[in-house]
Amino acid sequence: MNADLIFAELAAVLKSRLPSAGGDPDSSYVAKLYAKGPDAFLKKIGEEATELVMAAKDQNREAIIAETADLWFHSLVALNYYNIEPNDIMAELARRQGISGLVEKANRKDA
Amino acid sequence: MNADLIFAELAAVLKSRLPSAGGDPDSSYVAKLYAKGPDAFLKKIGEEATELVMAAKDQNREAIIAETADLWFHSLVALNYYNIEPNDIMAELARRQGISGLVEKANRKDA
Amino acid sequence: MNADLIFAELAAVLKSRLPSAGGDPDSSYVAKLYAKGPDAFLKKIGEEATELVMAAKDQNREAIIAETADLWFHSLVALNYYNIEPNDIMAELARRQGISGLVEKANRKDA
Amino acid sequence: MNADLIFAELAAVLKSRLPSAGGDPDSSYVAKLYAKGPDAFLKKIGEEATELVMAAKDQNREAIIAETADLWFHSLVALNYYNIEPNDIMAELARRQGISGLVEKANRKDA
Repeated sequence: MNADLIFAELAAVLKSRLPSAGGDPDSSYVAKLYAKGPDAFLKKIGEEATELVMAAKDQNREAIIAETADLWFHSLVALNYYNIEPNDIMAELARRQGISGLVEKANRKDA
Repeated sequence: MNADLIFAELAAVLKSRLPSAGGDPDSSYVAKLYAKGPDAFLKKIGEEATELVMAAKDQNREAIIAETADLWFHSLVALNYYNIEPNDIMAELARRQGISGLVEKANRKDA
Repeated sequence: MNADLIFAELAAVLKSRLPSAGGDPDSSYVAKLYAKGPDAFLKKIGEEATELVMAAKDQNREAIIAETADLWFHSLVALNYYNIEPNDIMAELARRQGISGLVEKANRKDA
Repeated sequence: MNADLIFAELAAVLKSRLPSAGGDPDSSYVAKLYAKGPDAFLKKIGEEATELVMAAKDQNREAIIAETADLWFHSLVALNYYNIEPNDIMAELARRQGISGLVEKANRKDA
C-alpha cells in the first residue's frame, strides 16, 4: 500500500474536475457536484456519515469499508474545493497524536 | 509526509485503547468511547460530519482541516473497533479510482 | 392552524403507504421508501438534518422552513414505520417541559 | 393532546431563553446554546439526527421517541433563533400534503 500515492492521485483527479480546470459536469460525477456548488457535496458528507453509522450498526464489514471510503472521498472532494491537501489532514492527525517527530525521523534519509 | 506510517501509528494507538487490550477509560478519551460501546463513537461521526459542513459553510480553512481530522479520526476509531485497517479504506479508494495498478507498479522494487 | 389535525392527516397518509396497506412504490415516494426498507428513509433523516444546518448557516428563512419540514416529514415517515404516533413525540416534549398538566387542564371540557 | 398548545408553550419558553430576552446561560441549557451562537445548537441537530438513526436501527421504541423529541426540540431551538414559528413548519407540511383546505374548513367556526 502507498497511501501518499493514492491521496496524490485522488487529489490530482479531483483538481481536474473543478470548473476552473474544465471539469465536465456531463461526464463526471465530481464535476457535476462542483458545478452545483458546495451544498451539493457538503450534503453528501452528512449523508455518507449516516450511511457509515448504519453500516456499523449492522456490523456489515463490507458496507463499513464502502461507506467509510464514500465519506472520505466526499471529504476529499470538499478539501480540494477549498484548496486543502490530504497531507494537511494527515499532518494534523500526526500532530495531535504526537507522532510528527517520529514520522519526521522515519522520513529522514539517514534514519 | 508519510501517510502509511501515520495511519499505522494511529491504528496501533487505537488498538491499545480497546477494552480487550486493557485500554483505561479514566486516562484515555478513546478508551472511554470504547468502554461506552459503539453508539458513543458512532454518534461522534454524525456530530463531526455536521461540524465539518459548518466549517465549510464558514469557508474557515483552519476549521475545515481540524473538523476533517476529527471526522477521519473518529472513522478510524470505528474501523479499529470492527477490526478494519486504514489500508482497507485506501485500497477501496484506489480500486474505485482505477489506480490500483499504478500503485502496485510504484510499489514494485524494480519500478 | 390545527397541528393535531395536520399530524393526524399526515399519519393517515403515511399509514396508507406501508407495504402492508398496499402502498404502491411506483406511484408514491413514501411507498417507495418503505419498499426499500428502513435504511432508505433513515438515510434521508441524516441528509435533511445536514440540509437544515446549511440553510441555517445561510440564514435563508425560506430554506430553513422547507428543510425543517423535510426533516420532520422524514421523521414522521420513520415513526409511522415503527408504529409510533406524532402524539407520542408531542407528549414527550410536553412531559419534559412540564407542561403536561397545563395541557391536560386546557383539554378538560370544563376548563 | 393539543399540539398547538404544546408548540406555543415551547416557543414561549424558547423565546425567554434568547440573550435579548435575558436568558441566563448559567441556569438554562437553551440559554447556554444561544449564548454560544448558532453552531452550538446546529451541531446538536446533526448529533440528534444520528442518535435517532441509531435508535431506529436498534428498533428501540422508547429511544426512537426520546431521540425524535430531542431532534424536534433542537429544531425548535433553531427555528426560534431565526424567528420562525412552529406553525410555519406545520403550515408547510399541510401545504405539501394538500390538506390546507381541509384544515381551514375544520378551523371554521361554522364547520
